[in-house]
Amino acid sequence: MAFHYPNGRRFIPRSPEEKHSLPKKESYSNRGKTLEDDLNDTNQYYLVQGIAVIHKKPTPIQIVDVHYPKRSAAVIKEAYFKQASTTDYNGVYKGKYIDFEAKETKSCTSFPLKNFHDHQIEHMNLVIRQGGFAFVIIRFSVTDDIYLMVAEDLFIYWKRMESGGRKSITVQEIEHSSIKIPLGFQPRIDYIKVIDSLL
Amino acid sequence: MAFHYPNGRRFIPRSPEEKHSLPKKESYSNRGKTLEDDLNDTNQYYLVQGIAVIHKKPTPIQIVDVHYPKRSAAVIKEAYFKQASTTDYNGVYKGKYIDFEAKETKSCTSFPLKNFHDHQIEHMNLVIRQGGFAFVIIRFSVTDDIYLMVAEDLFIYWKRMESGGRKSITVQEIEHSSIKIPLGFQPRIDYIKVIDSLL
Repeated sequence: MAFHYPNGRRFIPRSPEEKHSLPKKESYSNRGKTLEDDLNDTNQYYLVQGIAVIHKKPTPIQIVDVHYPKRSAAVIKEAYFKQASTTDYNGVYKGKYIDFEAKETKSCTSFPLKNFHDHQIEHMNLVIRQGGFAFVIIRFSVTDDIYLMVAEDLFIYWKRMESGGRKSITVQEIEHSSIKIPLGFQPRIDYIKVIDSLL
Repeated sequence: MAFHYPNGRRFIPRSPEEKHSLPKKESYSNRGKTLEDDLNDTNQYYLVQGIAVIHKKPTPIQIVDVHYPKRSAAVIKEAYFKQASTTDYNGVYKGKYIDFEAKETKSCTSFPLKNFHDHQIEHMNLVIRQGGFAFVIIRFSVTDDIYLMVAEDLFIYWKRMESGGRKSITVQEIEHSSIKIPLGFQPRIDYIKVIDSLL
């Protein structure tokens, strides 16, 4: 039976493991920040420290109607979200082209592949063929476990899905084929350290 | 004395050189396409041919209000254009990080530096320090002359302006410090060929 908060949100009881691990994690706890927030903070830290130049691309938008009021800024009055043809993040680290997508899931047992779309898989494929470094950052929001999986490994699971296999990657598979990124204070998600160990 | 078309647009007589070179250029004439259109076509060609993976970043927008109508796509009802913190184009070519900004001017004598802003100059500086390849593509829309200037050279003119010097780069300076990109059919603006000669 499901319980609900007065605002209608479902009550999800914490597992004993989570309760147990809370005090240890507390100092770096995520306080409701999204993966995107944490990666933006991380990229800002890399930028200021001269470690890497990596930015999130703006959300692609189809603009339909713009008003130009006198003596004030143009206002977009009608626009729609477009599907991105690439991944969200890219940039340069030690001369090398870096390209990645970041996604989080509320599931505790597996990562649904529907978080990515064909265009992005194709884009990562092209990046690799051009000598770039492509990967995904996956976050399990309930446990705050964050992993870096290189695109070549993601392709294996993607192909499995395309050949009629499961539509997600299990936590065990992710643990096996990815590198866990410990959550830190600064930078929050030190993925460059992982890249260093892989390049 | 200036002559005007019936629609009010000013008549600009062609110089003898232009008249002379017209038949040669005709087949590749720009037919009102913008520099952005031509670069998008070029990048698409590079992508399909497996030559490079370079995309224009979406225009950054600050979304203020979004409506979610039932059974149809979300509509952005209020949004504003934001200033970009980076250049517009980036990607990967032979493993190398490529980053550039493209601007055109209607002037025939010089290129105004106000086409770039501080953030972009700073961004290109950081890219170079990180081992990436940064440059600008400049188009004189009247003559359809297109040049590639590496960021290091642009910085010289930028610093001159910051020290109180002229706010533009003369055509002679551009001819001296840039590489001209001939307008082609496919790809339209073959800047990768220029990069090849520089890397």
